[in-house]
Amino acid sequence: MPSTNGTNAVQKSSSWGAIPTSDMARRTFNPIRDILTRPVRPLASPKSSKDLLSLSIGDPTVFGNFKAHPVVAEAVEEAAASYRFNGYPPSVGLAHVREAIANKYTHPDAPLTANDVVMTSGCSGAVEMAISVLCGAGKNILLPRPGFCLYNTIAGSHNVEARLYNLVAEKNWEADIEHMESLIDENTGAILINNPSNPCGSNYTKAHLRAILAVCERHRVPLISDEIYADMVFSGQTFTSTAWLTATVPILTLGGLAKQWLVPGWRIGWILIHDRANAFEHVRQGLVALSTIINGPCALVQAAIPKIFAKVPDTYLPELNRQLESNARILETEINNIPGLNVITPQGAMYVMVKIDLAAFAGITSDADFCHKLKWEESVEILPGECFSYPGTVRLVITPPHDILRAASARISAFCQRHRK
Amino acid sequence: MPSTNGTNAVQKSSSWGAIPTSDMARRTFNPIRDILTRPVRPLASPKSSKDLLSLSIGDPTVFGNFKAHPVVAEAVEEAAASYRFNGYPPSVGLAHVREAIANKYTHPDAPLTANDVVMTSGCSGAVEMAISVLCGAGKNILLPRPGFCLYNTIAGSHNVEARLYNLVAEKNWEADIEHMESLIDENTGAILINNPSNPCGSNYTKAHLRAILAVCERHRVPLISDEIYADMVFSGQTFTSTAWLTATVPILTLGGLAKQWLVPGWRIGWILIHDRANAFEHVRQGLVALSTIINGPCALVQAAIPKIFAKVPDTYLPELNRQLESNARILETEINNIPGLNVITPQGAMYVMVKIDLAAFAGITSDADFCHKLKWEESVEILPGECFSYPGTVRLVITPPHDILRAASARISAFCQRHRK
Repeated sequence: MPSTNGTNAVQKSSSWGAIPTSDMARRTFNPIRDILTRPVRPLASPKSSKDLLSLSIGDPTVFGNFKAHPVVAEAVEEAAASYRFNGYPPSVGLAHVREAIANKYTHPDAPLTANDVVMTSGCSGAVEMAISVLCGAGKNILLPRPGFCLYNTIAGSHNVEARLYNLVAEKNWEADIEHMESLIDENTGAILINNPSNPCGSNYTKAHLRAILAVCERHRVPLISDEIYADMVFSGQTFTSTAWLTATVPILTLGGLAKQWLVPGWRIGWILIHDRANAFEHVRQGLVALSTIINGPCALVQAAIPKIFAKVPDTYLPELNRQLESNARILETEINNIPGLNVITPQGAMYVMVKIDLAAFAGITSDADFCHKLKWEESVEILPGECFSYPGTVRLVITPPHDILRAASARISAFCQRHRK
Repeated sequence: MPSTNGTNAVQKSSSWGAIPTSDMARRTFNPIRDILTRPVRPLASPKSSKDLLSLSIGDPTVFGNFKAHPVVAEAVEEAAASYRFNGYPPSVGLAHVREAIANKYTHPDAPLTANDVVMTSGCSGAVEMAISVLCGAGKNILLPRPGFCLYNTIAGSHNVEARLYNLVAEKNWEADIEHMESLIDENTGAILINNPSNPCGSNYTKAHLRAILAVCERHRVPLISDEIYADMVFSGQTFTSTAWLTATVPILTLGGLAKQWLVPGWRIGWILIHDRANAFEHVRQGLVALSTIINGPCALVQAAIPKIFAKVPDTYLPELNRQLESNARILETEINNIPGLNVITPQGAMYVMVKIDLAAFAGITSDADFCHKLKWEESVEILPGECFSYPGTVRLVITPPHDILRAASARISAFCQRHRK
């Protein structure tokens, strides 16, 4: 408690004490960051002297095997050399860039113009803006379980109640529609889906997306469709953007450069506003207002987008998806050879989810304990299902090179062998 | 209100109605953006057919006379070409970049290490993070009047009460210490100062900064020192960073690349944590937590910083300041020749504040009315003191080229002549 008496000698000589932080700062908790920065054990040195193999963070760039197309770097270099994008961009983004994004993502059944695009600081910024415009204290939001933990972090930060609807592993991680619907009440601000999914690697069918839209329609709840992995699907799969399937449900579709163009560090995301029922007038104004706080993402990288969309060849994405699928299949085969572990076959994105039969192992108490001991003994870092509100599983990223995927699998196999009952 | 009955035919056929937004979205209001996008008049065409001369936005890059040093663009081009900064940076920023910033801003009386630096999405992002870590609903923050309106926007967004302390124009815009102190109570989360100041162009003396620090000390209130215009002062002036003058008051010093390096669109800011009283343990944790929401600014531009600091020659900043001062003096001379207008001589930054003697004009009801009619009749855009909570003044940016400063002054003179009583 501050003194209001400047002449109070005791107060003046006392220490400052700990300055408290806001409720928002205290409520903001990111379990991935927490787990990755947690010391492995309070001991002097790790038992394993092997190099750390990290299959934890969804960053495809770390090993060098997945690399941005040369056009992507060139486009930014040109923007920098032009000196034309050093000034403030409009807070919602540069007009010609918003137009390029609208042109790329417009669809006969879900038309977009530049006015429907708001640029954000990464897709994380899009998630924050979408949640914070639709939900506030006293509201709730429906989030997938398992789901990307940043949704929960942001809901918590904004004092929004996160209600987790179940995804069903046995049904390609489709949402349990009945469970989803049971969570809705008059304070539900939005339903959020993530398709293709992190951590599940699932890609929803049109029929399932229509079933989710029907829930939104029945309850008049808008949808946030996080499509940061749009178009990143494996052979036999077709990606469908949710907005293509409805003429009424108001949708904020989230996207960005991070994954498909392999530049997550550039922090470029966007929100596409689909509002054919004219329900989002206030939401549009709210998004514009919120965008004035940090004035959008880096103008240089914004300016690179039209060239990236126009000049990266059409062969790039199928080749990227082919490589990702090849990696996924290697990891699936290797991991499925390990008794007690069971891969749920992914259909896209950059991850596989693995079920752990804890009963098969001695002295492994949970998925978090599995990950912890694996890191300690074998220097392999993967994320426990705990991070995604889904115990009993672990998530592996599929983007490391084949030799690392095989080496990590061999170490996991040795670990499981050692701990088998 | 959403229906919870999916079979209700009336509900299903009714329109969606307007989706409400969060309180945060409704509370977020930026008066500059509002004024600049407001239609000049509800009439068919502007009275003046002249080109618009904009002296409104503090963006030095728009006219081409102030241009980033070539090293600045080269540093980003190199970072892009290296492919080394496409991945996620740590949410608080790249370690070697934080170290470069600490090395640049460390001072014998206020030492910094990389751990004291948090990278943010522009200095706006630093303002938001600093306010939101120290203040929340139910708290208040002391802000300068006149002051940069984003402070009020962000306080409003976070439901923090903005209490405005007076700056005294006649005393080089020093804070009225007694007034400042009278606003403090047990819910005061922080005092914010902006030095050098937008909109005032003032540069505080050591004695005045010490007087402000004494207020913080007496009341145990931490300081946010927005120093985005650090080192941008005119001849005869010396810039002092507030942190150099105290061994106890906990300070978050805010900065960025925007102004000194002439790249506001790159959205690179930072917070320097000065905590020699060990009062900011929770605040540090809170800043790290908040940084995980959008994961920091663009890694490419972060990576350019060490080269920018090392290779932009020492002659650059004095030359920039000389040009800014030359512009300020031209504008001051021209505007002071207009009866009814009175420039308060700036000492740094990029602005001049001009007092308007409204009694000297017929049919001009306020500073906002002055700006509105000036834009309508003369196509000159300047900002009313209203934007800075300081009626009776207008703010002009000093960065346009000399011919534009003179042309704008001539138009303002003609306008004042025409409206003189």
